Amino acid sequence: MKYAVGVDFGTLSARAVVIDENGRELAECVKEYPHAVLEEALPSGEKLGVDWALQDPDDYLLCLSETVYNAVSEAGVSPEDIAGIGIDFTSCTVMPVKADGTPLCKLEKYKDEPHAWPKLWKHHAAQYCADIVNEVAERRGEEWLPYYGGKLSSEWTLAKSLQILHEAPEVYAEMDRIIEGGDWVIWQLCGREVHSECNAGYKVQWRPDSGYPSRAFLREVDPGFENFGEKVQGELKPVGARAGYVTEEMAEKCGLSTKTAVAVGIIDAHASVPACGIATGGKLLMAMGTSTCHLLLSEVEKPVPGVCGVVRGGILPGLYAYEAGQSCVGDHFSWFIDNCLPESYWAEAHERDISPHQVLREKAAGQQPGEHGLLALDWWNGVRSPLMDFDLSGVLLGLNLQTKPEDIYRALIESTAYGTRTIIEAFKQTGVPVDGIYAGGGIARKDPMAMQIYADVCKVEIQIVDSSQSGALGSAILGFAAAECFGDVYDLVRKIGKAGNLKYTPQPENAEIYEKLFAKYQKLSAYFGKGGNEVLHTLKTLRLNAKKEQ
Amino acid sequence: MKYAVGVDFGTLSARAVVIDENGRELAECVKEYPHAVLEEALPSGEKLGVDWALQDPDDYLLCLSETVYNAVSEAGVSPEDIAGIGIDFTSCTVMPVKADGTPLCKLEKYKDEPHAWPKLWKHHAAQYCADIVNEVAERRGEEWLPYYGGKLSSEWTLAKSLQILHEAPEVYAEMDRIIEGGDWVIWQLCGREVHSECNAGYKVQWRPDSGYPSRAFLREVDPGFENFGEKVQGELKPVGARAGYVTEEMAEKCGLSTKTAVAVGIIDAHASVPACGIATGGKLLMAMGTSTCHLLLSEVEKPVPGVCGVVRGGILPGLYAYEAGQSCVGDHFSWFIDNCLPESYWAEAHERDISPHQVLREKAAGQQPGEHGLLALDWWNGVRSPLMDFDLSGVLLGLNLQTKPEDIYRALIESTAYGTRTIIEAFKQTGVPVDGIYAGGGIARKDPMAMQIYADVCKVEIQIVDSSQSGALGSAILGFAAAECFGDVYDLVRKIGKAGNLKYTPQPENAEIYEKLFAKYQKLSAYFGKGGNEVLHTLKTLRLNAKKEQ
Repeated sequence: MKYAVGVDFGTLSARAVVIDENGRELAECVKEYPHAVLEEALPSGEKLGVDWALQDPDDYLLCLSETVYNAVSEAGVSPEDIAGIGIDFTSCTVMPVKADGTPLCKLEKYKDEPHAWPKLWKHHAAQYCADIVNEVAERRGEEWLPYYGGKLSSEWTLAKSLQILHEAPEVYAEMDRIIEGGDWVIWQLCGREVHSECNAGYKVQWRPDSGYPSRAFLREVDPGFENFGEKVQGELKPVGARAGYVTEEMAEKCGLSTKTAVAVGIIDAHASVPACGIATGGKLLMAMGTSTCHLLLSEVEKPVPGVCGVVRGGILPGLYAYEAGQSCVGDHFSWFIDNCLPESYWAEAHERDISPHQVLREKAAGQQPGEHGLLALDWWNGVRSPLMDFDLSGVLLGLNLQTKPEDIYRALIESTAYGTRTIIEAFKQTGVPVDGIYAGGGIARKDPMAMQIYADVCKVEIQIVDSSQSGALGSAILGFAAAECFGDVYDLVRKIGKAGNLKYTPQPENAEIYEKLFAKYQKLSAYFGKGGNEVLHTLKTLRLNAKKEQ
Repeated sequence: MKYAVGVDFGTLSARAVVIDENGRELAECVKEYPHAVLEEALPSGEKLGVDWALQDPDDYLLCLSETVYNAVSEAGVSPEDIAGIGIDFTSCTVMPVKADGTPLCKLEKYKDEPHAWPKLWKHHAAQYCADIVNEVAERRGEEWLPYYGGKLSSEWTLAKSLQILHEAPEVYAEMDRIIEGGDWVIWQLCGREVHSECNAGYKVQWRPDSGYPSRAFLREVDPGFENFGEKVQGELKPVGARAGYVTEEMAEKCGLSTKTAVAVGIIDAHASVPACGIATGGKLLMAMGTSTCHLLLSEVEKPVPGVCGVVRGGILPGLYAYEAGQSCVGDHFSWFIDNCLPESYWAEAHERDISPHQVLREKAAGQQPGEHGLLALDWWNGVRSPLMDFDLSGVLLGLNLQTKPEDIYRALIESTAYGTRTIIEAFKQTGVPVDGIYAGGGIARKDPMAMQIYADVCKVEIQIVDSSQSGALGSAILGFAAAECFGDVYDLVRKIGKAGNLKYTPQPENAEIYEKLFAKYQKLSAYFGKGGNEVLHTLKTLRLNAKKEQ
């Protein structure tokens, strides 16, 4: 019997699983990053600006070795029998490094320089750079632009790199590479700098036919930016291929063998698609976490407005893979619990030894659609698809003296469902078929009220992915694929991948009311998001100005 | 030495003070209404609808006798030396009664009938009736309409009475009077049904020249409503006059004498004007409580859009008195404390033995305008001035994952300041001079941050009224006036009335930022309140529909 390891690097922790060749999970191990997300200050105390989000790369290596070592030990299998390891990683999380892979933030001279640290996907301080990039790309009519929804995100490599150039030119000059966290971890693991076409395709606008954005384009963005292409160079390989084999040093640290194949990296959400057994076009997978990522395989390539990107082979060889996203889903609910939940609700949660989410769900579950009288725009963390604008912010309407915490909580859930429906409609209207919906992640598995609301709002049946580690499972499948011991990746997906049996079906009487509310959501989205009223941008500007003066 | 008693009937309690002829306060007593506000159900358990707010009239009499008896006892003065008693009362709080004054809710057959109970000012379930009244008045070009801001409130007698006719016609038929709570208490105290021109003028559209709205108008509102005028009949007297003398029964219960003169009633907020020593035109007094009432004396009568009403002699004989209002001020902050304050903030309040308001104030006080990135429409309890629409609801914009409770709290305070500025501008634009601002009530005295924000937003100096019982003090002044022992009411106001010395002055750099935010507030008010987007009305309709189906 052969085995594979998959490691899923999330926003706050890494999780490793060990599976056998039938897909059975033998062991798993989770470890939180010791430094979590640096949002207020660097470890040295150096303060960060508004919307910054950094991480410490040492945390990645520590969690890699600990989780893999522990999972392999627990599984009780010999390192020699571990055929492959795959890694998925949050994206776009990019870090400036030297040519030998040393992160700039680990050089003594840069330890207090925020721009030398890895910028986590949710670092949102580069919006002004994204605006420049988008303006130039649109003016020049760059051919790749429509395939990224017509607008690049401030979360992506171009915007984040341009921010470094503008705000810390010495860091920009010194960095030999700006590299995805996932590609960097694989580099450390196998000693070879192999970039994933998945990362390059979605986050650096690399296209199989034309490569990276042209020097002429980059020069027009900023004369100093012309050499950006050199900083993302590196061998490119597709998802499903092998990057190399585990180095001796890492084999020892991780409890692996130097014969263990290392798969090419993949974005964390994308790894769930093979894990669910999805191997054909038309199936939309929602990976629901702090944010939600929408992944859709398709036989057709169309420029869908507001979709983050479409990449050939981005998930499985030969198929187009669309990625869309909502930048705030679980984060809404966590924010609410942290900042808005009254003492009495906490007391009930403590007394009954249940989560505060459960207290709120129970109080809100019996409500009819529309009963709370609220409507929200789910923009607490800006908007990814379809508006791609992180200077937007949340809106809550209908508040009154009878409004209870569970009302706001339910309205937040509903607003994220409206956001999802907006994305589904964008696909359908552009002629990309969507004929089935899967939902994975903690919310999908643990919150029946939310999933029923999603089914009612989107007027579609939703099938729940029952695994809690589909990211790591998908990576393990890619680990087997890299080892080339059980056929190609499609064979493995069909053999190992699986979703669950639980389904949510729309209730027509609820769907009817949500139809009205969704129409209002659309109208408000257009008003606040497309120039009808610039108040949200004004509020952001005033907020930034006030912070600057401090 | 002679003395007077003033009793202030608020939303949740009554407060009596005893003063001497120099205005010195000798004693005071407060008592909460045992039944407080009936919002969910009658005492019998009978459920109430959305937006209902009732009270129990027994509470009024109980609190009258207890507070007056205790205050007089504590003052240690002889009942014979109490020259007069004045009463002010929340308004429009109206109750259906028999010709002998018996409240219908005290008849066995009506005890489970919600419409037989007094409707508190903040009963907001009669909006559809106000819509009918306004439509007919506007169509007929009723001359009085412009003097009530062009739109009557659903809080007032016409709308509340029409709701009774529509929903409980047997109650409407059986009631001989629909009477203000204040007029009813005075009736019980002196045994004479004397209505106040203040109540009649503001709340029943009585005008000195033309009387109550015409039968022709009422018939057009509803054929069954033609006899409404009979139900508000009763002897009318102006503020500053005497209604009668305390009856033997009430003298005993209250510790007064049958020689104690009883003043004609006045609305609670209005009583603060004489208490502050305001006796000339141009001074705007904000009485800040759960809601805020804006009172402005003037030599000129103009139809100010959105102002609740202008009544000749409504506060002091000979001067026009304008009333405007914001239906949710302190209620915003209480709602926030009750529904949104996290456990850790409560813990800090308990530990330091301070109010949660103080915790929030300390955290928010150091912020610069605009720093929190939020903007709110202060419509949690609908809108009185200037939109006069209680189907509107609150809006909060700019929410993000960094938003803290104190940010929302501060944004709510600011939004009420924008609401106040809107009202001040309406006066000025119509040619009614405003040359000074006074602020009274708990918020004015206890919240320096809020008052500085008001000064900065309104760009005007604000003088704080330092008495905690200006309503009761004003009523006591009217008690002296009713006794006719120390000159007329103007003499008494000049002799006894006084504001404080504390003033807040606008800070130009803050005012500049608030100017921008106020412009956004105005634009959003017009959009959501004047037909740009009917979403708030749709939400209200869906909310009512959902409740109906239960």
